[in-house]
Amino acid sequence: MSTAGRRVGRPRASPRPESGLSAREELLAAASELFTSRGYAATSTRAVAERAGMRQATMYHYFAGKEDLLAALLEGTVTPSLTLARGLLEDDGAGAGERPAPAEARLWYLCRSDVELLCGGPHNLGGLYLLPEIRTERFADFGRVRGELKCAYGKLLAATASCGSLGTGELRLRTDLVFGLIESVILVHRSAPDRSVQVFASATADAALRVAGVPEEDLAAVREAAGTLSRPAG
Amino acid sequence: MSTAGRRVGRPRASPRPESGLSAREELLAAASELFTSRGYAATSTRAVAERAGMRQATMYHYFAGKEDLLAALLEGTVTPSLTLARGLLEDDGAGAGERPAPAEARLWYLCRSDVELLCGGPHNLGGLYLLPEIRTERFADFGRVRGELKCAYGKLLAATASCGSLGTGELRLRTDLVFGLIESVILVHRSAPDRSVQVFASATADAALRVAGVPEEDLAAVREAAGTLSRPAG
Repeated sequence: MSTAGRRVGRPRASPRPESGLSAREELLAAASELFTSRGYAATSTRAVAERAGMRQATMYHYFAGKEDLLAALLEGTVTPSLTLARGLLEDDGAGAGERPAPAEARLWYLCRSDVELLCGGPHNLGGLYLLPEIRTERFADFGRVRGELKCAYGKLLAATASCGSLGTGELRLRTDLVFGLIESVILVHRSAPDRSVQVFASATADAALRVAGVPEEDLAAVREAAGTLSRPAG
Repeated sequence: MSTAGRRVGRPRASPRPESGLSAREELLAAASELFTSRGYAATSTRAVAERAGMRQATMYHYFAGKEDLLAALLEGTVTPSLTLARGLLEDDGAGAGERPAPAEARLWYLCRSDVELLCGGPHNLGGLYLLPEIRTERFADFGRVRGELKCAYGKLLAATASCGSLGTGELRLRTDLVFGLIESVILVHRSAPDRSVQVFASATADAALRVAGVPEEDLAAVREAAGTLSRPAG
């Protein structure tokens, strides 16, 4: 392949035909690759623009800088799960005239989807969660969305039979452990990248239910009930 | 306090009296603080030496460079747990004339100790696990020790009643999930740094046993049996 198409300084008016991505998506894909392989601190905006095959000036049309790219990538790891979690929380049967799915099944469904999201991309974006840079005000939105997602996990947990009677502190601890288990896939999946994401996501959802205290003999029924759920309209 | 004692260029022959740490320990403490607060890439060896109150040339007497400091810090997060795990694996009663502690109790004990180690220091060293830099050959020792530690978790899991009949692939998956849960404290503890490490470590060990499939009603007995264990001689 000729390198001319990636030469810095050459303006681009349309997405690279071979990827079908928009310019914004190409920039995010390039940042995702470089931040996780070279490291965030070691990556320049110029390198990101180059990798996406566009001029740095064009990049600034989409992102104000490196922090903006990182913020967009981080938010992409939590926003879809928060949208799903909100739908599952509303799906408590009130007004629908139908019996709602048990909280255990909704929790299982959320866990599996969240793991699929965290492991689904080509790069381990979760690794960016631990960058010292993200403690700054610029990334407060990411922290807020992640906090809301954890809160939604807590509400689903509180609605399960096994956690329903826990005190506030105990429920918070259990929520932290379940949420931690889900986010730990960031570390785990990397160690066995060849394992099917589907198998791994289901097994992690099982494990999350076990942490919630759901008895082993109930898991099959929970999985079956979760199978009847469909992704709520975002 | 005068800043003279920290001035770069002033040779030091003895540890800083106020800390009681050796020069090597002071360097590791300084690196730990700076790598986790400023980031690894953004920290120079000169900054580490300065923070430790010694000359850069003196630092090179103890560490060949920044990678050496990082390797020592990373290995410190896994080596003590591996030593413990080996002791617990040997403690299977063979030749001791006594009934060994159940595998469940030994696993609980390892989990709690490991969490205490990971959360015990003043800085979140686990965050360094995800640095892209550590994929290089220089950090192969850390990867090896961490792999051996995971393997020890797997052996203890295989010896439990609930995991004893799992196939190889299933046992590996369960091991990954338990090990992931333990390492997830890196992310979780940061979100609630005021919670007692002891309470959190015990709760995480409970959760690990739940992931292993130990029934809820057996957990109290497992904790009690773990209470009779003492740290094997390393």
